[in-house]
Amino acid sequence: MASLKEVGERTLVDNIRKILRPAKGIGPRDDAAVVPSEGDVVVSTDTVSFKRHKPEGMTYEQFGWMAAAVNLSDIASMGARPIGILAAMGMPEDLDEDILYDIVSGFDQCAEFCNTFVVGGDTKVGDGYVSGTALGNLEGRKPLTRSGAVPGDIIAVTGNLGSAAAGYYALKNGIEADESIFALCIPVPRVKEGLKLSMSGAVTSCMDLSDGLAEAARAICSESHVGMDIQMEFLPVTPEVDDIASRLNMDRRELILYWGGEYELLFTFSKEKIAELYKAGLAFSIIGMVTNDRDPYILEEGAREVMRHGSY
Amino acid sequence: MASLKEVGERTLVDNIRKILRPAKGIGPRDDAAVVPSEGDVVVSTDTVSFKRHKPEGMTYEQFGWMAAAVNLSDIASMGARPIGILAAMGMPEDLDEDILYDIVSGFDQCAEFCNTFVVGGDTKVGDGYVSGTALGNLEGRKPLTRSGAVPGDIIAVTGNLGSAAAGYYALKNGIEADESIFALCIPVPRVKEGLKLSMSGAVTSCMDLSDGLAEAARAICSESHVGMDIQMEFLPVTPEVDDIASRLNMDRRELILYWGGEYELLFTFSKEKIAELYKAGLAFSIIGMVTNDRDPYILEEGAREVMRHGSY
Repeated sequence: MASLKEVGERTLVDNIRKILRPAKGIGPRDDAAVVPSEGDVVVSTDTVSFKRHKPEGMTYEQFGWMAAAVNLSDIASMGARPIGILAAMGMPEDLDEDILYDIVSGFDQCAEFCNTFVVGGDTKVGDGYVSGTALGNLEGRKPLTRSGAVPGDIIAVTGNLGSAAAGYYALKNGIEADESIFALCIPVPRVKEGLKLSMSGAVTSCMDLSDGLAEAARAICSESHVGMDIQMEFLPVTPEVDDIASRLNMDRRELILYWGGEYELLFTFSKEKIAELYKAGLAFSIIGMVTNDRDPYILEEGAREVMRHGSY
Repeated sequence: MASLKEVGERTLVDNIRKILRPAKGIGPRDDAAVVPSEGDVVVSTDTVSFKRHKPEGMTYEQFGWMAAAVNLSDIASMGARPIGILAAMGMPEDLDEDILYDIVSGFDQCAEFCNTFVVGGDTKVGDGYVSGTALGNLEGRKPLTRSGAVPGDIIAVTGNLGSAAAGYYALKNGIEADESIFALCIPVPRVKEGLKLSMSGAVTSCMDLSDGLAEAARAICSESHVGMDIQMEFLPVTPEVDDIASRLNMDRRELILYWGGEYELLFTFSKEKIAELYKAGLAFSIIGMVTNDRDPYILEEGAREVMRHGSY
């Protein structure tokens, strides 16, 4: 085992290239990669760091997966198909080289899961971060944005809510909770779901839940100039989340509405087109309705409260 | 004046958006940007940091410019036209907000100089770095790569050599040397030149000099399986560089061949097509010939030495 400084940049880059699946048709040794693409490109960049995004108990491979996932999730939420991802890494000089390779391997595994390739990167000395940039194609479709929801639309989400938050507190408190910890450490970018939503033609707005349900709902309300009534009892939550919340004496709402770090898609669609959405063959939960209000509200046992900003 | 922490993320992002020229047709508030594009995409990512790339005397605005320039240079060296650039920034929490805006402004100015737009970004807490990612289109042309040089080709460079290195030592030693310091602090990505080289159809290989002439020559030799004979006396060097080298009692070869941090293009072309290249209307200097050797050699006053790795 050797530190990054001892190994040296040239050898590190060679070793990283051996870990990555080679992307077709791309010269890996030129100044830039040439990525096969058609039409407009969807692109997004997001950084994760050891300090902020790697709780104790998360492996470096999982950290690498997450660095790719947060970016591919942004491509998914636009309804685009990933065509490549890049990683600019800043790593401490005294880091063990195997840790770097674990990060790269996790990053590449997430790219593979999303049916795409790592097409570029950079390794510099830094305090432990990965700045990812993901690219996608819309294939002639319109992007799914935050601004198309209209009053009367149905609100829905993919997957479950609150699991990443519950996983974080489970890890922190030594609680066994495989499902939630998995959700935190190996988040699934909803690429397939985003494509199905886009192809259904039924969706009026969409975004991912990286900052939590409340923050996403606020963003769609703000950009679409609408309100939302979301039914607390409709929210898809696993028993494990409730179990962790009660064991730690935490407000389950904090985990489910305000935490974030999860990568499900929140979307709205026209009631008349619900058949198209079912035909698209994706699993989702209906959680409420778009209103002509200005804010998202959460409704529970007769009470109706504005959803505040997330605490993530 | 307030620190980034005091200002808060939401306000910072709003203020950054006010600084940037708005990119046409791109929703700035969605999960990802939609960038108008046609055909294959050229993409590259590269990070610059305060510690490594901001010598004392360089302004933050210049640092921002440079963060964009290093990435746009990689697009230029492939012969592509920039279609967008992204900045993932990691900045200390106690940084003054105005410094962040200066960096963003410099970044955007370089994008404007290259006739493109900032299409995305991310601001996180970090130790002072900008990870840029630039995108370009080839518009149906083949990419300029490092692997097409053949023995008999002519070797040429755009611009002058050694100025960035000289500028660095001028700054460090308090020597007045505007031209060289300018070359160091506001490097020009050779986008126009790269496009002309690509469109000429004459170029067999090309890369930028970010790691210095020797390193670039070695890369082209290695990828093209050729050698090079480069004539020291042909190299375009300003009097200021020689003046600084002699004042600091430095070997001028170190500055000109081995230093880097400059963004001229090194390229090779077929002798028979020199007319096409002159017709393309760009300024360049012929510096040598491609050989059937395996390494790049530098020739000076009868001596012929292998060019070693750069020291940058």
